Amino acid sequence: MALEWLAGGTVTSVPGFLASGVACGIKRPAAPDLALVAAERPCAAAGVFTTNRFPAAPVLYDRAALAASPYVQAVAINAGCANACTGDEGLADAREMAGLVASGLGCPPEAVLVMSTGVIGVRLPMERLRVGIPQAAQALSADGGAAAARAIMTTDTRPKACAVRTVVGGRVVTVGGMAKGSGMIHPNMATMLAVIATDAAATPPVLDALLRRAVGRSFNAVTVDGDTSTNDTLLLLANGAAGRAELSDPDAPEAQALAEALEVVAVHLAQAIARDGEGASHFVTVRVRGAAGEADARRAAKAVANSPLVKTAIYGGDPNWGRVLCAVGYSGCAVDPARAALWFGELALVAGGRPLDYDEKQAAAVLQQPEVTITVDLGLGAGEATVWTCDLTHRYVDINAHYRT
Amino acid sequence: MALEWLAGGTVTSVPGFLASGVACGIKRPAAPDLALVAAERPCAAAGVFTTNRFPAAPVLYDRAALAASPYVQAVAINAGCANACTGDEGLADAREMAGLVASGLGCPPEAVLVMSTGVIGVRLPMERLRVGIPQAAQALSADGGAAAARAIMTTDTRPKACAVRTVVGGRVVTVGGMAKGSGMIHPNMATMLAVIATDAAATPPVLDALLRRAVGRSFNAVTVDGDTSTNDTLLLLANGAAGRAELSDPDAPEAQALAEALEVVAVHLAQAIARDGEGASHFVTVRVRGAAGEADARRAAKAVANSPLVKTAIYGGDPNWGRVLCAVGYSGCAVDPARAALWFGELALVAGGRPLDYDEKQAAAVLQQPEVTITVDLGLGAGEATVWTCDLTHRYVDINAHYRT
Repeated sequence: MALEWLAGGTVTSVPGFLASGVACGIKRPAAPDLALVAAERPCAAAGVFTTNRFPAAPVLYDRAALAASPYVQAVAINAGCANACTGDEGLADAREMAGLVASGLGCPPEAVLVMSTGVIGVRLPMERLRVGIPQAAQALSADGGAAAARAIMTTDTRPKACAVRTVVGGRVVTVGGMAKGSGMIHPNMATMLAVIATDAAATPPVLDALLRRAVGRSFNAVTVDGDTSTNDTLLLLANGAAGRAELSDPDAPEAQALAEALEVVAVHLAQAIARDGEGASHFVTVRVRGAAGEADARRAAKAVANSPLVKTAIYGGDPNWGRVLCAVGYSGCAVDPARAALWFGELALVAGGRPLDYDEKQAAAVLQQPEVTITVDLGLGAGEATVWTCDLTHRYVDINAHYRT
Repeated sequence: MALEWLAGGTVTSVPGFLASGVACGIKRPAAPDLALVAAERPCAAAGVFTTNRFPAAPVLYDRAALAASPYVQAVAINAGCANACTGDEGLADAREMAGLVASGLGCPPEAVLVMSTGVIGVRLPMERLRVGIPQAAQALSADGGAAAARAIMTTDTRPKACAVRTVVGGRVVTVGGMAKGSGMIHPNMATMLAVIATDAAATPPVLDALLRRAVGRSFNAVTVDGDTSTNDTLLLLANGAAGRAELSDPDAPEAQALAEALEVVAVHLAQAIARDGEGASHFVTVRVRGAAGEADARRAAKAVANSPLVKTAIYGGDPNWGRVLCAVGYSGCAVDPARAALWFGELALVAGGRPLDYDEKQAAAVLQQPEVTITVDLGLGAGEATVWTCDLTHRYVDINAHYRT
């Protein structure tokens, strides 16, 4: 069986996972703002967290909890308050949040992880969570994945979820996930929260290895504005319900089907984040090839994807390709100007570092499409990288000028 | 005599320098787009150029010319076309531009430098320069500095020029300069062109040393959007007309007054660029102190100054300080979250990594001012840095979405 997409897939497309999303009064005006994902039995787990040096309280909490024991039964996520830059009190709030979930589900608090997203520097309204978490536990259901994906949104305009089915070691296995963006999106990690669930059976070290590989090709290849948040968290939970011996070697042939399914789900969610970047009107793929090495290619692709001048030109439909080469030029990657080539979509604009005699109207037409691919060939080596982003629009400024007000 | 500002100062405030600005038809609609600065005798010269690896033709030309002989008699600058990514033909155009100036002035072509700013990837309209350069040479005058400063503008909303007078080794010396911004502004260098003239007498190596020090504290401390252009060039010309023996040691006590005057002019021009950043509605000073070292402080200050989320919050008058700490956190500088403190203007918002009980209205009032200072104290060491920038506004998007159209 090849990989199969499940229509309307979510985390609860995975057998053995329940989810819910409720409004507990953190967001103003009221909207769903509390999600719960729970497994019927403890799951092997792995996590990837922000590299920001002001990690939010839930990041500190989860890292410590996973280090102590990589088995998890539930994840609670609130939107509207990041619980970041809140000191020891914030850490105590994260701990209480996990405890409330454990009480509601009747599981040990060590088996609960938490995530928060929203405004930095504000304490969690614990009195609302004390009421909301039992409600969310009550609301858990085997088709609650869509409600959970909706409850973790902040400036996202739509929920992001998907699921695929494949065969791992002779058993049908499902991988389903959900994520939220949509500003402060940048590699290592994108500012985002995501939960991926599977019924595959694998040890925590195998999950950790597979998750990190998938992240390198998905969430770490997406950028909206170059800002890496204090809260980025991606968790992978595997309940083993598909029923077979645990995978114990990430490089074993039977792990490859699971690795592939994970990557497909992660890429889908990461692209969904860029597509729904704050104010986005274009989904942009930046491909750099012919770089001296992969690190160089990535550096160049990220510089192009983060350049406000490139992003505003795409928004305006202006095929101002000079800004693309300019961004490559300051990215720090090795360049021989006389070898550079550039395409907007299929249209070649530059070869040998000089403009070709292309048709401006055709170039502008490429930018009329909602999806734009920019390809740069540096002509130096075999290094390749792809980064996804969106354009920079008036709406981005609208959203972020008054985020708290 | 202390340092004295000259009202309405420009490059032609410096004895022995002439300048002009004319419209030669590169900009559409027609506007002044060609500036000439000329000295009555050859000047010792120094230059600092973009680090972008797609350097524009005039950058390649000037670097080679200065390396061959650091004596310069004229600088020609056009706006409207960057002559970047134009290959060997572009380099030939830059050479012809210098030759046209030399013919007009009757000086050797090796004594002429050129600069260009504008759209990348388009050849210079040489037929217009062949007519315009003789006109600019004809128009040279001892009060042409203001016209020259106006002719080098692109999206700048106002010309940028200043001059100061000081005493160097017992002689009255003048330092005058002009610059243009105003998008693609980022340290190393800001995207900018600038010419600074002085009648001090100094050898080219002394000028080079003093210029590099001044740039470190001025143009390299300003950022608008993090984009480093293909064309950034800063030239310093010293005609020695103040009449004394050449300074031959940049560290000699008598060089200090010149160093100070140079720095004051460079800082004024750099700040003028940030104040007039594309679409700017606020001038923002980001000060980081208490960092583990100066490099860390600079890294953190630049990350804050470049964060689209910080810049849009300032535009919107929203004192969302969490975004400031978040940017520090991903800058790569060393951080102990429990020691961080933060101020907007004089108002303390954070101490020990946690929000203080400040008045939101007072914090918002700070952002009502046209000039905003954000101070971060990391509480770790003696590292300090200051970076100037502007906010990110709807107008920035307007300007850059349709720059070429």
